[in-house]
Amino acid sequence: MIYFDSDYMAGAHPEVMARLAETNGEHTVGYGCDGYTKKAAGLIREACGQEDARVYFLVGGTQTNATVIDGILSRHEGVIAAESGHINVHEAGAIEATGHKILTLPSHCGKLVASEIKAYIDNFYSDDTYEHMVAPGMVYISFPTEYGTVYTLEELTAISEVCHDAGIPLFIDGARLGYGLAADGNNVTLKNIARLCDVFYIGGTKVGALFGEAVVITNPDILKHFFPLIKQHGALLAKGRLLGVQFEALFTDGLYERIARDTVRKALRLKEAFKAKGYPVEVDSPTNQQFFKLPNEVIDRLRENASFEMWGPRGETESVVRFVTGWATTDADIDTLITLL
Amino acid sequence: MIYFDSDYMAGAHPEVMARLAETNGEHTVGYGCDGYTKKAAGLIREACGQEDARVYFLVGGTQTNATVIDGILSRHEGVIAAESGHINVHEAGAIEATGHKILTLPSHCGKLVASEIKAYIDNFYSDDTYEHMVAPGMVYISFPTEYGTVYTLEELTAISEVCHDAGIPLFIDGARLGYGLAADGNNVTLKNIARLCDVFYIGGTKVGALFGEAVVITNPDILKHFFPLIKQHGALLAKGRLLGVQFEALFTDGLYERIARDTVRKALRLKEAFKAKGYPVEVDSPTNQQFFKLPNEVIDRLRENASFEMWGPRGETESVVRFVTGWATTDADIDTLITLL
Amino acid sequence: MIYFDSDYMAGAHPEVMARLAETNGEHTVGYGCDGYTKKAAGLIREACGQEDARVYFLVGGTQTNATVIDGILSRHEGVIAAESGHINVHEAGAIEATGHKILTLPSHCGKLVASEIKAYIDNFYSDDTYEHMVAPGMVYISFPTEYGTVYTLEELTAISEVCHDAGIPLFIDGARLGYGLAADGNNVTLKNIARLCDVFYIGGTKVGALFGEAVVITNPDILKHFFPLIKQHGALLAKGRLLGVQFEALFTDGLYERIARDTVRKALRLKEAFKAKGYPVEVDSPTNQQFFKLPNEVIDRLRENASFEMWGPRGETESVVRFVTGWATTDADIDTLITLL
Amino acid sequence: MIYFDSDYMAGAHPEVMARLAETNGEHTVGYGCDGYTKKAAGLIREACGQEDARVYFLVGGTQTNATVIDGILSRHEGVIAAESGHINVHEAGAIEATGHKILTLPSHCGKLVASEIKAYIDNFYSDDTYEHMVAPGMVYISFPTEYGTVYTLEELTAISEVCHDAGIPLFIDGARLGYGLAADGNNVTLKNIARLCDVFYIGGTKVGALFGEAVVITNPDILKHFFPLIKQHGALLAKGRLLGVQFEALFTDGLYERIARDTVRKALRLKEAFKAKGYPVEVDSPTNQQFFKLPNEVIDRLRENASFEMWGPRGETESVVRFVTGWATTDADIDTLITLL
Repeated sequence: MIYFDSDYMAGAHPEVMARLAETNGEHTVGYGCDGYTKKAAGLIREACGQEDARVYFLVGGTQTNATVIDGILSRHEGVIAAESGHINVHEAGAIEATGHKILTLPSHCGKLVASEIKAYIDNFYSDDTYEHMVAPGMVYISFPTEYGTVYTLEELTAISEVCHDAGIPLFIDGARLGYGLAADGNNVTLKNIARLCDVFYIGGTKVGALFGEAVVITNPDILKHFFPLIKQHGALLAKGRLLGVQFEALFTDGLYERIARDTVRKALRLKEAFKAKGYPVEVDSPTNQQFFKLPNEVIDRLRENASFEMWGPRGETESVVRFVTGWATTDADIDTLITLL
Repeated sequence: MIYFDSDYMAGAHPEVMARLAETNGEHTVGYGCDGYTKKAAGLIREACGQEDARVYFLVGGTQTNATVIDGILSRHEGVIAAESGHINVHEAGAIEATGHKILTLPSHCGKLVASEIKAYIDNFYSDDTYEHMVAPGMVYISFPTEYGTVYTLEELTAISEVCHDAGIPLFIDGARLGYGLAADGNNVTLKNIARLCDVFYIGGTKVGALFGEAVVITNPDILKHFFPLIKQHGALLAKGRLLGVQFEALFTDGLYERIARDTVRKALRLKEAFKAKGYPVEVDSPTNQQFFKLPNEVIDRLRENASFEMWGPRGETESVVRFVTGWATTDADIDTLITLL
Repeated sequence: MIYFDSDYMAGAHPEVMARLAETNGEHTVGYGCDGYTKKAAGLIREACGQEDARVYFLVGGTQTNATVIDGILSRHEGVIAAESGHINVHEAGAIEATGHKILTLPSHCGKLVASEIKAYIDNFYSDDTYEHMVAPGMVYISFPTEYGTVYTLEELTAISEVCHDAGIPLFIDGARLGYGLAADGNNVTLKNIARLCDVFYIGGTKVGALFGEAVVITNPDILKHFFPLIKQHGALLAKGRLLGVQFEALFTDGLYERIARDTVRKALRLKEAFKAKGYPVEVDSPTNQQFFKLPNEVIDRLRENASFEMWGPRGETESVVRFVTGWATTDADIDTLITLL
Repeated sequence: MIYFDSDYMAGAHPEVMARLAETNGEHTVGYGCDGYTKKAAGLIREACGQEDARVYFLVGGTQTNATVIDGILSRHEGVIAAESGHINVHEAGAIEATGHKILTLPSHCGKLVASEIKAYIDNFYSDDTYEHMVAPGMVYISFPTEYGTVYTLEELTAISEVCHDAGIPLFIDGARLGYGLAADGNNVTLKNIARLCDVFYIGGTKVGALFGEAVVITNPDILKHFFPLIKQHGALLAKGRLLGVQFEALFTDGLYERIARDTVRKALRLKEAFKAKGYPVEVDSPTNQQFFKLPNEVIDRLRENASFEMWGPRGETESVVRFVTGWATTDADIDTLITLL
C-alpha cells in the first residue's frame, strides 16, 4: 500500500527524530524556558529577518489559531476569514468557543481578495447599525490555503495594506508554510511573510516534525501577554524543549526548506502523471496537496493499492480526490502510483 | 548539577523512546484512529478492569482538565475542587475560560473530605437563593494531590458515595497517577480508581512519556460527544498515533508501574536522608514529590550543585522547598544529594 | 413629524401603562415569583393550549435569544439559522459570545426551507470529518421574519418534522409574534406555534409593552434549569412583576391580538398607498414592516415630514426603505403620509 | 402585612412614574440615542463633576457587572473582589460565564482593605509561576456593600491609590449607591466616587426607578467600545428612553438624594427600635439594610404581620434576619413594626 492521505501520516523526519533521541536523557526546565527553545527562536528570528520578533512554540494548529485569535480580538470583534478557512470549517467551533464570530468572505480557491476585505470593512462602518454588529477585528488567511494555493507577493501586499489602513492585524496560518514557500512559481519569501503580517506561524506538524507550530509575532503592540494565554488554552507543553529541539533541527542546515522542496517536487511529479493520463486537475495547486476529478471506477481501482481521501461527496460517475505528499513519500511511491494510473 | 525540579525535565523513558523510533517511519491515519491507539486503549481498559470504558488520548494536563470539565458541566454549574487544586491555581484560568466557576473547599494537604463536600451540597440546596448561585455540577480531585498526598480507599469511597448520592460525577486528575498507585502505604488500585469515579486520566507526561494523558470514561452517560470537544479545545493531536505508541509501551510488561515504583522509591530515599539530617518534612508525602523546610543557608549551599524549586516565598531564615524525582533520576543522583546535605 | 422608523418608538399601550400605574405602589416579591407573573404565565399557557408549558419572562429579545440558545446547545453544537437571522446579523455576536457557532443557510425573504435544513443535516453526518465540524444542535427561525414575512402552516409543519426527525429542538423567535399571527393571509395560530416548536417567545417590547418577552417552553426535556441561566445572562429583572403585570394586561380581553391586528391593518393601508403610487414593493410583507424601493428624491422629500429607515445603502438613483407601524401609529399618520407621497 | 424584604418590592417612586406616564405616547429613536437619555447623561456628568465622563444606561445590576468586567479585562486577567461580593455569590456565575476568574480576598463586613489588595498583587508578581496563574486585572468593590456598610473616604482613597499604582482599574458597584451616600456618618461624595474610581454605576432599580443602572466611565482609556458590548450582553433596552426618562427624573430637583436620605432615615429608626428592645445588631450598617440576631420565636411572631428575609440558615435558638427599607416604606410601617417588636 502507498499513502497519499495527508502529510501527517508518518512520524518526524529522521534528522528531527535523531535530535530528539540524542537529547532525550538531558534535564532541562519545562514550558519552553530551556536553551533549545531559545536557540530555535533565535534561528527563526534570523530566518524571518525580524530581530525583535517574539517566537512561541505550540503543539498543534487548531490550538494555535484559537490562542492567537482569542488573544488579539476585543470582545466586540470577530475575525474575517474565507468561507473555506480551516477555522471556519474544520476546527469544531474552536474560535466561537472563545466567544468570537468568524466573518466569512467568499473563497477564491481558498484565497481572500484585498478589495473584498476592504469593501467589507467600508460597508460595515457605513452601516448606521454597525454597533449592533460584530466589528471586523483582524484578518485570517492561510498560506498555502486549504486548497494548496498560494498568494502572490502582490496579492499579499495588497491584503496587508488593507489591514494596516484599517488598523487591524493580519494573521497568517502557516500550518503548511514550507510547502507554500517551496511552491512552483511562488514569489513570496519567509521574510516577506514576516514583514507583511502581524503574526503568523510556521507549521512543523505537517513539515517534518512530530508536532509543533512556531508562532512569530512581529507587531510589538499585539499579544503582549501571550504566555499565560498559551497556558489558559491548554497549549503549553510541559516538556517544552521537545518543540525547541525539533525547530532547532528544522532550522539548521536548511532542513525545513529541504523537506518542503522535496515534498512539493514529488507532488508535482504526481500532478504531471495525472495530467498526462488526461485526468482533470480540480484545483491548480502548486504545493503538496493535489486535487483531481477521477471517474469512480478509477478511484475504486486505485484504492486497492493506494490510500487517499475523497474531497467532498462521491459523485454519480466521477468524484474529486485529494493526493498529498509528505517527507516520508518516496519517489518509488510516485513511480508505483504512476504504474497504477 | 543534579536535578530535582520536576518530573518533566527529561524526555521519555528509553523503552517509550525506542518504540517511537521503531515506528517513526510507518504511515497511519491521524487523530487517534490508528491501530496503536486502539491497542493502547484496549490495554488500558484491561488494566482498569473496565471493558466498556471509552479511552481518549490528549496531549497535556491543563487541556485535559478543561476539556473534561467543560464537557460535563451544564452552563449553570461549577466544579467543586480544593483551594489548592491545580485547576484553581496553576492553569491560568482555563476552567473559567470555558465559562465555569470553580467552587472551592478547604484543602487538607491537597485533599477534599467527603463530609465537607456533602455539607456544601446540602447547604447549597437549602439556601432559598440557590438558583442565583452556581450549582455544584461535579467534583474534581487529584490523585496524588498537588502536595504528593494520596486518598485512602476509604476516603475515596466516601467521596464517591457523596457524589453519586448527589447525582454529580467525580473526576480524578491523575497527572501523576502512577506515583499515587505506587505510594508508600497506598491501598488504592487502578481498578478502584476506575470503579469509584466517572472519569479520570492516567498521566503520561510526568510518568515516562514525552507527553500524553489517557482519559478513561467509565460512566456511559457523560461526555457522549467527547471527540469533537477534544478538537474544539485544540487538544487533538494530528499524529495521534504518537500517543497510542507511547501508552502501548507504558502498558506493556508493566512499564508504567515499574517507572512509578522506582521513582517513588528514590523519592523516599531522599526523604529519609533529609529526615536523618533533622530537616523537618513540610508535608508527609508518600510519593515522588517531597517538601522540606530548610534553613536558607542550606538552600543556598545546595543550589550550587542541585536544582530544585522553592515552594512559596523565601522566608526570613528558612523556606519550604520541593524535591521531585522522575524516571531519569538515578540512585547516583540521590547519593550525591545525600553527600551535599 | 410622523414616525415609521420602528415599532419600539413609543412607550406602552395605554391599557398596559394603566395597569403599571395602578399596581405601582404594591409590594411583591421580586424575580418573577409574584402573583402577577404567575397569573400572566397561566393566561399564556391557556392561550397556547399548552397546560404544562413552562413560561418565563425576560426583558429583551437579544438576551432571550442568547439565553435560550446557550441553554439548549451542548458545547460541540451550533444553531442553524438563516443568513438574515437577527441572531446572525444584529445581535453584536451575542450567540458566539456564549461559545456557539451560527450555522447559516440561505434566506428566502428571511425564511428557511425545510428541505434545505434536512439536506444540511444529512450532508453533515455523511461527511467523514463531521466530528471536526460544529454539529447542528437546534434550528432558529423567526415568525414573522426580519423581512416581515411569515411561514405558512405547511412550511412550519415541514420544518418541525425535519427537526424532530433529526432529534434537535426548534426555537421560534417571536419578537413580533403578534404581527405574524395577525398577518394578511396567515394560517398559523398561536396554538400551532406552541405545538410545532420546542420553545418560542411572545414579543412584548414591539407589541405594546414597555419591554418584555415571554418564553414558552413546551418540550419538557429542554432548558430544565432555565432560571439560573436567566440570572447568569443578566436577564432576570429584580422587579419581575413589571413583566407579569404587562403580560397579564396583554393577555386579558385579547389586547395583544387587538394591538397586532390594528397595527398590521395600518401597515397594509400604507402598503396600498405606496403601490397605488406605483412604487415597487421590495419584499411582499403581510405584517407591520413594509419595504419599498423609492427614487432618492422621493426619499429626501418624504424625510422632511416623516421619519423612517434606509434598508441597506443608498443607491445611485433609488434606494430601499422600511416603514414600520406600531400601536402608537394613528390612521391620521397614515393619511398624512398618503398626502405626502 | 408590612414589607421589609428588599428595596425592589414596589414599583417606581411616584415622581419617576409620573414622568414615564407623561412621556409615554411620544415617539423617540431607540437604544438610548434619544434626547431624554442625552439629558439624563448630562445631569449625571454634572452631579459627578466629570464633564468628560461617558454615561450609559443598562437595565439591571448583574448584566451591568458582567458587561463592565468583561469589557475591561484581558483574556488572561481576573477581577479582585471580596469573598462576599455580589459577583462572587449571587450572580449565578455571570462573570465566569464571560471567561474570567474572580480572585477573592477576605471580606471585612463586605469591604476590601487596601493593604490586602496590595499584598495580593505584590505576592502575585513575586511568584515565579505567575504566568501560570490568573493575573489581577481590576478591582471590584460595592458601595455600600452587600452588608450595608460603607467605605470611608480614606479607605476608598487608599484602594484607589493601590489600583492606580498597580495600573489596574477600580470599578464600584453602586447598585445601592444612593443609600451609601446618604449613610449615617458617610464622608464620601458622589464627586469623590467619580474621581477615585475608573468606572462605577448609579443604581436606579433599588433607589426609586422601575429598573435601570447608570454606568459612568471616567477613565477615557477603558471600555472604548462599550455600546456593542452592551448589545452583545443583551443589556441594550430597545425603548432606551425609558432609562433616560427615569434618570432625568431622579437627577432633577435632587430626587435621587431625597429618596435615599428618607429611606436611610427610616432604616435607622428601625435599627434604633431593635436596639432599644435589646436585640443585637449583627452588622453595624448605616444604610437601608439592617441585620439583627433575633430569637427564633420572635422571628416567627413577627412573620405573622411582617415580611423580611432570613440571612443565612436558621439557627437552633436564634437566627440572623435582614430588614430593608425602600422608597415605599412609610413611617407608619416603622411604627407598626415597633409595636410588633
